[in-house]
Amino acid sequence: MIVSALLTSVGINSALCILFFALYSILRKQPGYLYVYVPRLLAAKGIERNRLIRLKRLLPSPGWVKIAWKLTEEELLSTTGLDAVVFIRIIILCLKIFTFAGIIGLFILLPINCSGTQLAAFDITVISNETLDLFTISNVNNGSKWLWAHCSAVYLMTGFVCYLLYHEYDYICSKRNAYFYASKPQPHQFTILVRGIPVTPGSSVSESVNNFFKDYHPTTYLSHVVIHRTNKLFYLINFVKKMYRRLTHKQSESAKEYSRHNGSFGLHKSDREQKLGDLEENLRAEQSDDASGQEVRSAFVFFRSRFGAAIASRLQQSEKPTEWVTEQAPEPNDVYWPFFQSTFLHRWMSRVVIIITSILLTVLFLIPVVLVQSLANLSQLEVWFPFLKDFLTAKMVRQVVTGYLPNLILQIFVKLVPPVMEFLSSIQGHISYSEIQRSASDKFLWFIVWNIFFANVLSGSFFNLFAVLLDLKNIPSHLAVSVPAQFIHVYAPKFETAGRFWPTVHNCMIFSLVLMHAIALGIFTVKKLSSASSLIFPLPVLTLLFNEYCRKRFLPNFSIYSAETLIKKDREDLSDPQMPRFFTELITAYMDPALSPLQCSNSDCHSVPSFSDISNDHITPLLSLD
Amino acid sequence: MIVSALLTSVGINSALCILFFALYSILRKQPGYLYVYVPRLLAAKGIERNRLIRLKRLLPSPGWVKIAWKLTEEELLSTTGLDAVVFIRIIILCLKIFTFAGIIGLFILLPINCSGTQLAAFDITVISNETLDLFTISNVNNGSKWLWAHCSAVYLMTGFVCYLLYHEYDYICSKRNAYFYASKPQPHQFTILVRGIPVTPGSSVSESVNNFFKDYHPTTYLSHVVIHRTNKLFYLINFVKKMYRRLTHKQSESAKEYSRHNGSFGLHKSDREQKLGDLEENLRAEQSDDASGQEVRSAFVFFRSRFGAAIASRLQQSEKPTEWVTEQAPEPNDVYWPFFQSTFLHRWMSRVVIIITSILLTVLFLIPVVLVQSLANLSQLEVWFPFLKDFLTAKMVRQVVTGYLPNLILQIFVKLVPPVMEFLSSIQGHISYSEIQRSASDKFLWFIVWNIFFANVLSGSFFNLFAVLLDLKNIPSHLAVSVPAQFIHVYAPKFETAGRFWPTVHNCMIFSLVLMHAIALGIFTVKKLSSASSLIFPLPVLTLLFNEYCRKRFLPNFSIYSAETLIKKDREDLSDPQMPRFFTELITAYMDPALSPLQCSNSDCHSVPSFSDISNDHITPLLSLD
Repeated sequence: MIVSALLTSVGINSALCILFFALYSILRKQPGYLYVYVPRLLAAKGIERNRLIRLKRLLPSPGWVKIAWKLTEEELLSTTGLDAVVFIRIIILCLKIFTFAGIIGLFILLPINCSGTQLAAFDITVISNETLDLFTISNVNNGSKWLWAHCSAVYLMTGFVCYLLYHEYDYICSKRNAYFYASKPQPHQFTILVRGIPVTPGSSVSESVNNFFKDYHPTTYLSHVVIHRTNKLFYLINFVKKMYRRLTHKQSESAKEYSRHNGSFGLHKSDREQKLGDLEENLRAEQSDDASGQEVRSAFVFFRSRFGAAIASRLQQSEKPTEWVTEQAPEPNDVYWPFFQSTFLHRWMSRVVIIITSILLTVLFLIPVVLVQSLANLSQLEVWFPFLKDFLTAKMVRQVVTGYLPNLILQIFVKLVPPVMEFLSSIQGHISYSEIQRSASDKFLWFIVWNIFFANVLSGSFFNLFAVLLDLKNIPSHLAVSVPAQFIHVYAPKFETAGRFWPTVHNCMIFSLVLMHAIALGIFTVKKLSSASSLIFPLPVLTLLFNEYCRKRFLPNFSIYSAETLIKKDREDLSDPQMPRFFTELITAYMDPALSPLQCSNSDCHSVPSFSDISNDHITPLLSLD
Repeated sequence: MIVSALLTSVGINSALCILFFALYSILRKQPGYLYVYVPRLLAAKGIERNRLIRLKRLLPSPGWVKIAWKLTEEELLSTTGLDAVVFIRIIILCLKIFTFAGIIGLFILLPINCSGTQLAAFDITVISNETLDLFTISNVNNGSKWLWAHCSAVYLMTGFVCYLLYHEYDYICSKRNAYFYASKPQPHQFTILVRGIPVTPGSSVSESVNNFFKDYHPTTYLSHVVIHRTNKLFYLINFVKKMYRRLTHKQSESAKEYSRHNGSFGLHKSDREQKLGDLEENLRAEQSDDASGQEVRSAFVFFRSRFGAAIASRLQQSEKPTEWVTEQAPEPNDVYWPFFQSTFLHRWMSRVVIIITSILLTVLFLIPVVLVQSLANLSQLEVWFPFLKDFLTAKMVRQVVTGYLPNLILQIFVKLVPPVMEFLSSIQGHISYSEIQRSASDKFLWFIVWNIFFANVLSGSFFNLFAVLLDLKNIPSHLAVSVPAQFIHVYAPKFETAGRFWPTVHNCMIFSLVLMHAIALGIFTVKKLSSASSLIFPLPVLTLLFNEYCRKRFLPNFSIYSAETLIKKDREDLSDPQMPRFFTELITAYMDPALSPLQCSNSDCHSVPSFSDISNDHITPLLSLD
């Protein structure tokens, strides 16, 4: 690559940046796009849609940048939770690292590289025609003393990154505790999920749970909800929803027809109401059936204190490790219901199968890609689409097809991976959406690491582009999510992990550092400065030791809160007059949506969350045709 | 190797077996060896030494075999604990596996191998001169259908071993629980070890512990003992012991001299008593000093119930994972005291250093061995010891030197490894002897696995012998330990792990199975029966899945007892009238031996274990010269 090409590229990217900035500044002010850019405000306050003057709406304005920069962490925390704060901190951390690396690279390493003569002497007068290699370490003379600057830069970078990582870990750790102390009592803090409940003949799962926890946790046990087999119900509800949509659609069409012909609307209407009435009756019968019978051997168990729940979830409960398996419950709206009905062995086996599948997908991913790429070449296209022959022989088109088609195919394949990984994670046996997403991210991360590595080792050609593409794509959605101001309006958290994804980021950074050391080791060996190579060797070891220390020092706080924290928080609540009410509500917090009554409005049907008792009769109306 | 050589080897080994059997039968009856073979009986009952008639004592008698075979598991359990039972079960398991393998090998595979003609036709008339390879799979014709018998044998063996392993794991698991239920209250069940105790300025470690546990575990916390810095004291006690031995030695010599010369004994005696008195005074002063000051930030904390101790040891106690680090305490006499005084960072670093050292030792072990072996050849010996030249040139001597010297050197080096590993483990930061031994065994196991592999891959020559040697050596000590009858008399358990080493055995078996699959895969490939090779492939996967299942199903029971178990046991104790006394004694159970008073008898000095209060004055006499 020559410098002029680089400069062109910089120009294009800068222009794109300005364009997107302007577009965003304009689009965010259009009433039609409010649901994209301020859905939270729309939902919370219901802003007046046409309050803005037309002309102002069409001019880009940078005012939102000021607001975005002025936003403090506390404001962000209070509006969107800790996850958003941690996410922003990750971006800021990356900015810091890139700034530091940029300064060292531009002001120290670049001049040294240019002053070398390994490839050719650097000539400022023909700069735009020079090859880019002249700016890299390749141009430094073999065995030159100047290479020590690069060696020192590796040490500096490692030290700087580790320093930042340590403080970030420490900070997020303390924020997690502070966030926990500041939080209101939340159902998942008091709830555990129990699976593999053994049942003696003649008694129900519910009795078994009650007996066990009353016996072994008498002072802290509050109540429980046994999970029911609701697969059939789930399908029934979906069917009812579909039927409802179809019937209301027909109804509105009939209404139009009625206004034209003034015909037999009354008969039609009662006919449809009859049908919906039948469905409602069916669903209600099924729901009360399933609520009383068909218990699954899993239950949510509620405790009077967080410490009580922690004890029950962290200690093995039964002599048999496969019975009374406990874990901290996810947030009520984070629960993923389908997998409660499977047994220990089933879940374990599906986990194993999915892990093997993911590994195979990751390892074998490049085979179909390369295959399709080799099929979709110019001569093949001419065979498939003979009518395009003249078009394809044009020089410009040839360049585009040969240059961009392979990348396009690769991109399409890569695009398919995250949904596939998420699907795999969803049938792996996780019981919360957050776990599914975390697991899918991990899988995709490994996928990227392996495939970049693999491609680097094998070919190293198109994967440089691959890495760049991954960053540049989806700029608008990045704009809508990653800018702080928009966190307030756009980001509507489905669940709150209180920054539990930080350790993954930390591990990625450590991985990158060790990768950098490996590359440096290789370069210094090629550059015949063996003393520098051997001086690099302690760095990965030290970095890994640092990582190990961080694991010991901070990681435990990311899996469970300490006894001290839990007890302190429990004691605070003792004086809270709201607690009795909270405990009453707690019992109804974990309700299978398939057992909740269905509420139908003009546009759609949805399950009504959390209500007190499924089996008594005030669950009317199941369907209301407002 | 030819058959005659094998037969000779079998003959020699059988003769050795009979010899050792006879020797053991005679030696165990000699009064002089009673301390070797029945130390427990000697200690417990003090048997009359000369009750046996002389002639009978010199004839081998097989009566003890009968007693050994009749011994039931319950008797073994009651006399020597669960560890011994598990150990015997391991031996029986191995016997079962070898019997099964032997039957398949002798009656199915051997005839098939002999019937092959790949190497040569098998001729029964010249059997003693046939090469052993004719009996192996090498002799089966390539691609022969008979190879399927070998393939089936691999499946059969894997299935049989997995079946046995599962039942053994299950059985030992249930025995562990039964053993725990049957056990009397033991100090370590009620005690946890706390490290990294933070101290606020102006308060002591003891106050800090008291406040923390009274605050967060008010109902279960009983008391605590803070650990003191006793390095100096430890050396002082060793010095006193040495001095005492030297002085008593001199005293007895003087007494002899006195009886000869009737001289100035009185003066000498008072002189020595004066010295010992000074030492005693010093030691006592140091002990009371150290008991009051120089607290280390570690403590043993006692609880009123096992469940209380388990909660405190299993849940992270403090917001900072490096403070209030808790773990279940080892048995009082299993405590290894030197490592309490080190900080979290120090312990962590020493662990890392030791692990790296062990890996280096394991990986680089063969280098010095091969080096010394290459140095110690015949011509080199002739240069070093020229006077042996005539002796070394004798044909017999030449054979011995060239044949056995390399193995001798290897053996000497291998002999050095276990003590080195134990030393490494002892400075790794473990706080109990059992942990040190377990860690050293693991290290040695990895050492063996790696070095056998390495040698197999690289040379495969002398390591076959290596493996055999490891088994054949130390037959007498094996006799004295592994025969059940002798478990009763010889084996004096220093600590009881209740079979916690079983998972290691299980893992070794699984490793061996997978290794067998790998070898089978290789053999079938060489033998050109690729369908058999591909049929072997699922076996290691299934075996590893089986192992994973066992880990889930049984392993948790080997780290901690379940809440159910602990609470049941605690409730049983509620009605035990001995418990108040037990709790009183519990507080004194964990006492640093360096702070215990020194009791000196005629032969030696030893620390007096467990007493109630170190700081008051009835700790006299510190030294008693009986």
